[in-house]
Amino acid sequence: MGENREIPYKIYLEEHEMPTQWYNVRADMKNKPAPLLNPGTGQPMTLEELSGVFCTELAKQELDDTTAYFDIPDEILQFYKMYRPAPLVRAYHLERALGTPAKIYYKFEGNNTSGSHKLNSAIAQAYYAKNQGLKGVTTETGAGQWGTALSMACAFLGLDCQVYMVKVSYEQKPFRREVMRTYGASVTPSPSDKTEVGRKILAEFPDTNGSLGCAISEAVEAATTQEGYRYVLGSVLAQVLLHQSVIGLETKAAMDKYDVTPDIIIGCAGGGSNLGGLISPFMGEKLRGEKDYRFIAVEPASCPSFTRGKYAYDFCDTGAICPLAKMYTMGSSFMPSPNHAGGLRYHGMSSVLSQLYDDGLMEATSVEQTAVFEAAQQFARVEGILPAPESSHAIRVAIDEAMKCKETGEDKTILFGLTGTGYFDMYAYEKFNDGKMSDYIPTDEDIAASLAKLPSVN
Amino acid sequence: MGENREIPYKIYLEEHEMPTQWYNVRADMKNKPAPLLNPGTGQPMTLEELSGVFCTELAKQELDDTTAYFDIPDEILQFYKMYRPAPLVRAYHLERALGTPAKIYYKFEGNNTSGSHKLNSAIAQAYYAKNQGLKGVTTETGAGQWGTALSMACAFLGLDCQVYMVKVSYEQKPFRREVMRTYGASVTPSPSDKTEVGRKILAEFPDTNGSLGCAISEAVEAATTQEGYRYVLGSVLAQVLLHQSVIGLETKAAMDKYDVTPDIIIGCAGGGSNLGGLISPFMGEKLRGEKDYRFIAVEPASCPSFTRGKYAYDFCDTGAICPLAKMYTMGSSFMPSPNHAGGLRYHGMSSVLSQLYDDGLMEATSVEQTAVFEAAQQFARVEGILPAPESSHAIRVAIDEAMKCKETGEDKTILFGLTGTGYFDMYAYEKFNDGKMSDYIPTDEDIAASLAKLPSVN
Repeated sequence: MGENREIPYKIYLEEHEMPTQWYNVRADMKNKPAPLLNPGTGQPMTLEELSGVFCTELAKQELDDTTAYFDIPDEILQFYKMYRPAPLVRAYHLERALGTPAKIYYKFEGNNTSGSHKLNSAIAQAYYAKNQGLKGVTTETGAGQWGTALSMACAFLGLDCQVYMVKVSYEQKPFRREVMRTYGASVTPSPSDKTEVGRKILAEFPDTNGSLGCAISEAVEAATTQEGYRYVLGSVLAQVLLHQSVIGLETKAAMDKYDVTPDIIIGCAGGGSNLGGLISPFMGEKLRGEKDYRFIAVEPASCPSFTRGKYAYDFCDTGAICPLAKMYTMGSSFMPSPNHAGGLRYHGMSSVLSQLYDDGLMEATSVEQTAVFEAAQQFARVEGILPAPESSHAIRVAIDEAMKCKETGEDKTILFGLTGTGYFDMYAYEKFNDGKMSDYIPTDEDIAASLAKLPSVN
Repeated sequence: MGENREIPYKIYLEEHEMPTQWYNVRADMKNKPAPLLNPGTGQPMTLEELSGVFCTELAKQELDDTTAYFDIPDEILQFYKMYRPAPLVRAYHLERALGTPAKIYYKFEGNNTSGSHKLNSAIAQAYYAKNQGLKGVTTETGAGQWGTALSMACAFLGLDCQVYMVKVSYEQKPFRREVMRTYGASVTPSPSDKTEVGRKILAEFPDTNGSLGCAISEAVEAATTQEGYRYVLGSVLAQVLLHQSVIGLETKAAMDKYDVTPDIIIGCAGGGSNLGGLISPFMGEKLRGEKDYRFIAVEPASCPSFTRGKYAYDFCDTGAICPLAKMYTMGSSFMPSPNHAGGLRYHGMSSVLSQLYDDGLMEATSVEQTAVFEAAQQFARVEGILPAPESSHAIRVAIDEAMKCKETGEDKTILFGLTGTGYFDMYAYEKFNDGKMSDYIPTDEDIAASLAKLPSVN
C-alpha cells in the first residue's frame, strides 16, 4: 500500500476486512474503572444482581475488565453488514475551504435509519436478549437516536420494544417517534404516569421537560416489573463501549490500509459511547506504550461533566434506582437548560472514560452551542452532510485544531467521529437559521447545588 | 472475477472505477423523442430560445440526441466523490424474509443529505450555471428532495438558490425547508404572490394545495424576469436523464464486476429522472440488440400518466409558459387528490421514456399507496432503510415479482432503484401507522376532463 498511495475521499473496508471481534479497552488499563455499586448496600454489584436488570451475557460483559477481545456473534455480523462498514472520509473539501495544511478525516456513522452509531450496540443488546429467550426490552431515549436504533434491532429480531422518550424530545421530534412506530416500538413520553417513579417525578416537578435520568428510571422500573423483559441502555456502560469499539477498529483498519496515523482524535462526549468506541483501539496502543495520540473529548458548555463536574460515585438515573457508577458527573439531579438544543445532556460520563481522563490519558474541552451550529453549517455546506448537533461538537473542535495548524503551518492529521445526521434536529437548526439560538452556561452555584446531592457512599 | 465470487451485502465501486462520462440513451434510439415546441409558434425550440430559460450548455445537452457520451467535468466528479459511489445492495435479508429464490438487488441513492438521487443532476446544472457566470438559479420542488439537492449544490459553488415549494409540502415538511435554508436557499410556498402566474393561479384557485406544475410556472417566471438567473428542473428533461445515467452506469459496473445480469429492472416513475437514469445503459444494450431486459416503470394509481394518460404534446407546467413536450400525460391541469402522500405527483413523463414506452421497449404498472407503504414498512424492518414513499413504489413491485418467483421456483435476478429515504415523510408514515391512509384512483371522467384541455398543437 505505502504512503504514496492516493487516498480516496471515502475509504470503505471490504466486508472480509470488517472486525469480527470487539475490543475491551479495560483489559489494557492499569487503573481499572471503579465497579458499579449496589445503591442499597454500597457493595460492588454481583453478576446475579446485574442479571436482574440486564441480560446475563451483557452483565458478564459489563463486569469483565480483563478479556481484551470478544467474538462478535455471526447474527450480529450479518446485521452489521446491512449498514457497515461505515466510511472513513478524507475531508478534502473542508480542508480546501479552511485553507489548512492539516489532514482531516472523519468516521461517518450516520448512514443508517437510526442516523447514528447507536445501532452498533442496539443490535448487540437485542441479540443477547433474544438469545436469552426474553419477550422484549425497555429503554429510554433522549434525542431519539438510541430509541430508533433499538426499535430497528428489535424489529429485525422480532422482540418487543418499549421506549421512554424524554418529553421535550417527544414533543420536538414527533417524526422520530413515527420512525420508532414504523419499526413496531411503543413510545411513551417521560416522565409518564405509567411507572411509580414517573408519577413521583411528575408530582415533584409537574412542569418538567423530562431528562435522560428520569427516562432511565422509568425504563428500568418497566423492565423489572414485567415478566420476560430486561433493560438496555445506549451509552455510559462498559458493555456499550465494548460494542462501539467496532467504530474505532474499522477506523484503525482503514487508516492502517493507507499508512495513516492520526495525531489528534476528537469525539463528542455525552455518556461516552461514541468517543469510547472511536478511541478504544488507539487508546489501547497508548496504554500498551506502543504509540502516542492526543485524545480530545468535546462536551457542551451547558452540561460539562468532564470539565466542571466531579469524579465521584453517583446515580445513573434521576430516580436513583440504578446501580451507582463512579464517573465525572454534574450530579444526577442536574438538568441542563431547556434552551440547550445541542444534545449530550446526560449528567454523567462513562466510568471507563472517566478513569482514563482522571489518569491524564485524554483531554476534555467544552463548547457553546451557537459556535457548534456555526461549525455544523460550515461543514454541511462543503462536505454535504447535515450533521447531528451532537456530532457537531467534534466538528467545532476539529475545525479549531485545523485552524491552529494553518497558523503554525503544521500538517497534523486530525481524526474525528461524525456520529450522525441532523435530519430530525431541524427545530434546532431553524432556531439557528432564524438567529434565535442562545448559549447557556450553568453557574458554579447551579453545579454545586446539584453536586451537594451526591450519594453518601463517596 | 467469475460467477463464483461471493457477492457482498453492499458493492461499492472504487473511486477510480466510477463513471467519468454520462450516457445519452437518445443516441441509440431509432425513434428519437419528439422535440420540445415553442408554445407560441408550435415550432421546435431552437438553441437560442432554450438558452433564454436554461444555461447554454444545458440547452445544448437538451437538444443533442446523437452524442452517446458526455465527459463529466472534473469539478462535478469531485462533488460526486462526496457522496458517490452509491452502494449496490444485495437484499439478502429481504430475500430470506420473503423465502424467495429470486436474487434481489437495489441501487441505493439516499445516502446524502438531499436524501435522493436528485443531487446527481443538481450539481451538474448548478455547475453549468456557475460556469456561465450567472448569479443564481430558480426552481420548484415538490416533496423537497430536488430543492434540497439544488440548495446543496448551490451552497457548494456559491450560487444564489431560489426555490418555489409546492404549498402542501411546504406546510407538511417544514424540516425540508430548514434544510434548504441551512444551505442558504430562499424558499417560497407556491402558488405565491411573488409572481404574476402565481397571483393568477391564486385568484382562480384560492384554496389550492399547489402542484409541481404551478411551482414550475412561478420558478420559470422568476428566472426570466431577474438579470443573471436561469431556471433549472430536477426531472422530465432529457438533460436530467443524461446526468442521472450515472446511477445506471455505476449499477452496471458493479454488476459486471460480479458477473451478474438482471432479468427485471424496476424503477418508480414520477417525471422519470430516476427510472431513466437507472435503465439508460441497460436500455442502450437492448436498443443495440446486445442484450434483453424487462423494464418496469411503477407509478402511483393516483397519477398514472403511463397507464392511463395520453401520449401527446402538453404543457410542462400549469401556467403554460414552458415549452411543450410530447409525453404520456394526465393533462397539465390534472391535480392528484391531496390525500395522496406517496409522491410522484407530476402530470407528465419524460419524453425519452414516453417514446421508449410507446415503442414497446418497457412496461408500466400502477400501484395504490397503502400497498406501497406496506411494502415500505416490510422493507424497512428487514433491510434497515426507511424508504421514501416514491422509492417504495419500486419496492412494492420488486416484492411482487420476487413472490411470483417463489410460486414458480424461478431464481430471477431483480434490480430496482431505491431512490431515497423517507426521513422527511413521517407525516405520511404517521397516517399509515395510525391506519388512516386511504387510496385514491381518479375516475375516467376526471382524466378525460383534464385531457380535454391539451394544447391545440396535437
